[in-house]
Amino acid sequence: MKFSELLQQLGIDHHHSLGVKPGCNPEITGIAQVQQARSGSLAYIDGGKFASTIETTGASALILPLDETLQAKATERQIAWMSTPDPKLLFAKAVPLFYQPYRPAIGIHPTAIIDPSVRLGQNVSIGAYTVIQADVTIGDGVCIHPQVVIYPQVQIGDRTILHANCTIHERTQIGADCVIHSGAVIGAEGFGFVPSADGWVKMEQSGVTVLEDRVEVGCNTTIDRPAVGETRIGHNSKLDNLVHVGHNGQTGENCIMAAQVGLAGGVQVGNWVILGGQVGVANQTRIGDRVQAGAKAGLHGTIEPGSVMMGNPASPYKTFLKASAVYNRLPEMHQSLRQLQQQMSVLQEQIQAIEAVMVVEGLEQENEGTHGTGIQ
Amino acid sequence: MKFSELLQQLGIDHHHSLGVKPGCNPEITGIAQVQQARSGSLAYIDGGKFASTIETTGASALILPLDETLQAKATERQIAWMSTPDPKLLFAKAVPLFYQPYRPAIGIHPTAIIDPSVRLGQNVSIGAYTVIQADVTIGDGVCIHPQVVIYPQVQIGDRTILHANCTIHERTQIGADCVIHSGAVIGAEGFGFVPSADGWVKMEQSGVTVLEDRVEVGCNTTIDRPAVGETRIGHNSKLDNLVHVGHNGQTGENCIMAAQVGLAGGVQVGNWVILGGQVGVANQTRIGDRVQAGAKAGLHGTIEPGSVMMGNPASPYKTFLKASAVYNRLPEMHQSLRQLQQQMSVLQEQIQAIEAVMVVEGLEQENEGTHGTGIQ
Amino acid sequence: MKFSELLQQLGIDHHHSLGVKPGCNPEITGIAQVQQARSGSLAYIDGGKFASTIETTGASALILPLDETLQAKATERQIAWMSTPDPKLLFAKAVPLFYQPYRPAIGIHPTAIIDPSVRLGQNVSIGAYTVIQADVTIGDGVCIHPQVVIYPQVQIGDRTILHANCTIHERTQIGADCVIHSGAVIGAEGFGFVPSADGWVKMEQSGVTVLEDRVEVGCNTTIDRPAVGETRIGHNSKLDNLVHVGHNGQTGENCIMAAQVGLAGGVQVGNWVILGGQVGVANQTRIGDRVQAGAKAGLHGTIEPGSVMMGNPASPYKTFLKASAVYNRLPEMHQSLRQLQQQMSVLQEQIQAIEAVMVVEGLEQENEGTHGTGIQ
Repeated sequence: MKFSELLQQLGIDHHHSLGVKPGCNPEITGIAQVQQARSGSLAYIDGGKFASTIETTGASALILPLDETLQAKATERQIAWMSTPDPKLLFAKAVPLFYQPYRPAIGIHPTAIIDPSVRLGQNVSIGAYTVIQADVTIGDGVCIHPQVVIYPQVQIGDRTILHANCTIHERTQIGADCVIHSGAVIGAEGFGFVPSADGWVKMEQSGVTVLEDRVEVGCNTTIDRPAVGETRIGHNSKLDNLVHVGHNGQTGENCIMAAQVGLAGGVQVGNWVILGGQVGVANQTRIGDRVQAGAKAGLHGTIEPGSVMMGNPASPYKTFLKASAVYNRLPEMHQSLRQLQQQMSVLQEQIQAIEAVMVVEGLEQENEGTHGTGIQ
Repeated sequence: MKFSELLQQLGIDHHHSLGVKPGCNPEITGIAQVQQARSGSLAYIDGGKFASTIETTGASALILPLDETLQAKATERQIAWMSTPDPKLLFAKAVPLFYQPYRPAIGIHPTAIIDPSVRLGQNVSIGAYTVIQADVTIGDGVCIHPQVVIYPQVQIGDRTILHANCTIHERTQIGADCVIHSGAVIGAEGFGFVPSADGWVKMEQSGVTVLEDRVEVGCNTTIDRPAVGETRIGHNSKLDNLVHVGHNGQTGENCIMAAQVGLAGGVQVGNWVILGGQVGVANQTRIGDRVQAGAKAGLHGTIEPGSVMMGNPASPYKTFLKASAVYNRLPEMHQSLRQLQQQMSVLQEQIQAIEAVMVVEGLEQENEGTHGTGIQ
Repeated sequence: MKFSELLQQLGIDHHHSLGVKPGCNPEITGIAQVQQARSGSLAYIDGGKFASTIETTGASALILPLDETLQAKATERQIAWMSTPDPKLLFAKAVPLFYQPYRPAIGIHPTAIIDPSVRLGQNVSIGAYTVIQADVTIGDGVCIHPQVVIYPQVQIGDRTILHANCTIHERTQIGADCVIHSGAVIGAEGFGFVPSADGWVKMEQSGVTVLEDRVEVGCNTTIDRPAVGETRIGHNSKLDNLVHVGHNGQTGENCIMAAQVGLAGGVQVGNWVILGGQVGVANQTRIGDRVQAGAKAGLHGTIEPGSVMMGNPASPYKTFLKASAVYNRLPEMHQSLRQLQQQMSVLQEQIQAIEAVMVVEGLEQENEGTHGTGIQ
């Protein structure tokens, strides 16, 4: 489509763009990263370290921040542009104009095995060899890819997508507009074993896993159900691949967990929390709203709202960065300490010697401080 | 059921309970966490930080520790109780009286594909679309959920449960009363590549993975087979989700590995070892009996029996806790060191100056120490 | 086979072996680890800490390094041997003479569902219940195990093996001679969400994942596709189990990623890079050729070619090892510092006192240093 049409579809005011002047209304045929963009592509620049790509990008059109230098440069290079306070967000809205994710057709594949007790919504798509067991409820517009297994008494909300080879365990409740990626396992038995003289005794897991609306669960991620009560992932929270959420974990709204995050049992997470890759959270940890934890952090205890944490055990990030900046000087510090200790011994002896001389010579001391000099 | 019947079923002496007196034999209809328990629920209190929940719980009955204060409080609040040295263990035994995990009916689904050479035990349950290949042996009472793939020459012991979408590779031996959770992969090729001038050369993995009786393997956990010899998980050991056990790993009895633990190749683990979440164990590490490693610890070399280890590289936990308590003071320590070095220089010059004056004035020194004063 | 035949098949010169003399041409029936080897077994010794196993091994034949002591010892113990600069590599070449991995027969299982638009090569093997969707291209000699799901428009190169229960997402390109292990998910949507006032907004992932020839992908490993552009794993790179490669990750040739490694978005990795288990790599990190990172390292920024990195945040390994060797002395260092500070105060007061006495006594100072003594 023409750039001018793109502006229109995105609802962008011409005031915030260069795209109506003669010679600057290119045909846009696709989207690209700004460094790899070629003629016909729309890309975005978020500012920061990618700002310099404005000099070299082959894009025909750019989404720019509210930055007059970048805008002038784009104009100079004859690149059509629009500007917005949040280029990445606008780009996200532009992507669907050029790319639609694959969705299988509506309909139930003849090889899908659906228990007669299952309540199916309207316009569902159910893939080959998918197995849906007794008393499951499937909402309208749900899309289930091939080879999914749904255990009994599961509820799946409207328009939710289940990708191939994932497994939804008994009694799990999944909200509307969720996406469960391939290989994920939701609602399996929590890891509950009690030590006894005869070895570990299994605690049966009678609880339930609940995903609220708009939750996404990454590939091969696992979210367990508890012995009693709920494991719950809050509205619009997004979990990346290979994440583990243990029994009784609870998250608020709009949380982000990057890949390979692990939550032990009974963790409570507030709203708008962001956990970086490979973060680990200990049993019963309480994480306040808007906490952010850097990659590989280890959280435990109570994390105050708004904290930004790093390291293991985690500290506020400023503390961590200062400490880790010094960490590599530890050997040098250790050596300095030993040197200081030696120098201190030398000085102590020197002063003792001086004081001894002064005593011999009858030199008297005027002021005796708290520590004194030892001269009598 | 009535509380008195519950006592009977659990074999609890009335001496250790309040549940026969008039007005204190409630109907128990389910189980709950103590904080969320409502009327009709049985819960447990283990003591410690949950002790205060006795004040507020809505439970009709409690399993308590041998703690007279808690018992008196429960009596006062008209909550039926029983007491035991290990409330969690007794609760685990009570759960099955109120909750039975879902098990599919005995029988073989007509869509299961079972090679004619497979030896099937009595009373097995085999789910839809499960594929069992040549020369597999399946014990009595085995339950295999839908979509499981079993490669040739596998052995599965009596009463073992295989959840949906898991994969058991060729020649794997799984004992009796094991549980393999959804998406787990047992006995796949170990990660064996040898560097050469032409790049990495694959070492074929001719070995076998063995799970002894009563082993549990978490969702999406992977246990590889080796090039030669065995990978072996010992009796009653329990692995949580997303754990990795590399080729030739060996564990003893009653080991616990929390989620996302990783064992590199050739690791040997004793009995009753507990590895916390995200622990990593280097190639050829030897871990003694009853070792415990805190979450995220990195183990290598030889870990003595009974050690409690934390950190990466791991140290005994007391050492680690002391060191990590000081860690955040590193910048302040670094600054103190520099200050001390400056102060030291000043003092050294002051003493030199004093000594110089004393030499000029002809003041003689009495005792010359090891280090001397530099005064001649 | 006879040891002499083994030599012949491996192309080993008799000069580098003991295997033709009378009484030293044993029948070799299998392969084993040197510690567990029994009569009839071929094993290898790489030197180093396994060298002492030459004293006790029950192997009938050994592959040895170019080490005359080991060779003499083997000769003395009547063990047939061959020697090579790289025993493990030669052993890898010997394994297939005794062990062939299981491969299903050529042919398409009648339950496999293959879209009519799929282009199938010659001599393919496609397992039970595998689902191959529209416009997929499958090369010659490809082997697809049961229960695999291939989304539309995927390309699979010649002789590539896809193990059970893995999922290949739309438009993914997999080269020749690759192995995708069970449960792996290739080409699923990258983790792309943009914050907005209304919560996280999904960025659709229009890009593609490409695996070049001879790539291996471990069990339950996930390699995502990006919003735009490519995720690419280079020629002959090998990824172990439970690895995560985020959107737009790029690796060169012959890279190794051990189990549970995680690459965030946009990471660029050179050739011959080795990442140890549980290594994490931050967004946009650039890793040069032949970098090695120890287990659990956290990499970010730019890592120079040839670096060997450890720790989190990662440092050159010598620096890390020195620092971590001192780490546990931190509490002692902290105490020493405080002691030095106290001693310093005492000395400062002592010197002040001495100087005061000297002033009173009219002792004059000869040389005034930079810092002076404060004596006038």
